[in-house]
Amino acid sequence: MEPILGTNVITQVGILVNDIEKTSAEYAKFFGVPQPELFITGVPEEAQTEYLGKPSNARARQAFFKVGPNVDIELIEPDHEPSTWRHDLDQNGEGFHHIAFVVNGMKKYNDVLNVAGMPLLQKGEYPGGRYAYHDANDSLKLILELLEND
Amino acid sequence: MEPILGTNVITQVGILVNDIEKTSAEYAKFFGVPQPELFITGVPEEAQTEYLGKPSNARARQAFFKVGPNVDIELIEPDHEPSTWRHDLDQNGEGFHHIAFVVNGMKKYNDVLNVAGMPLLQKGEYPGGRYAYHDANDSLKLILELLEND
Repeated sequence: MEPILGTNVITQVGILVNDIEKTSAEYAKFFGVPQPELFITGVPEEAQTEYLGKPSNARARQAFFKVGPNVDIELIEPDHEPSTWRHDLDQNGEGFHHIAFVVNGMKKYNDVLNVAGMPLLQKGEYPGGRYAYHDANDSLKLILELLEND
Repeated sequence: MEPILGTNVITQVGILVNDIEKTSAEYAKFFGVPQPELFITGVPEEAQTEYLGKPSNARARQAFFKVGPNVDIELIEPDHEPSTWRHDLDQNGEGFHHIAFVVNGMKKYNDVLNVAGMPLLQKGEYPGGRYAYHDANDSLKLILELLEND
């Protein structure tokens, strides 16, 4: 038996927050590290974000904390454009959003997950790669993120 | 600066489920592994569970999936006695419950977290160690689990 994504190693635990400066400061204190740089996802022309099959101007601010050799906690503060981030933050409040896996062959795995009942929610590009969120709530009780780096 | 818990390495991502046989089978298929053994937390005399400062007879069934060198996904199906598991499952439905860290000195860290505004929710014993859940929703937007192995 092979893992459906070709891997079983998680690389990220994603957490939605309303105020990334504030929560990032709390995490920095908790982990005893300097407050990390804040990133922001690309402008629409670069990110080419699609949410539920439609282009979206959504962007998010991000902060990363190392919590293992290959694992980060990612804090995500979305804007108010349509996205899985904004939907879940509005619906469920702050907290867990996804676990992520690095894959090799994004389109193949998008198809595999769609067929397996874990439909694509959102996708986009970042410098050097791309991501996709799939809704695995029915089977795995969470959202999966696939990351592919060129 | 030191990490508050003496570590920044997560060892577990905990997921609440209603039907552990069913969801464990879905995870086994997803990761391409045999369905793992199901565990059950100890009887009350062994587990000495306390939830919100009071003894509880709560027990849970558990299944573990390796998702990295030192990280597992833990599926948790609680019974209907009072616990953070049952509370969160009733309140939020299936899905993410906690991230866990292995600590050395449980009582010290219980005190440190209580003082830091992350109060003890639940604690108990297991063969060879003990656990404690702390409510870090205010600051970190999640529940922490501390694990101490003798």
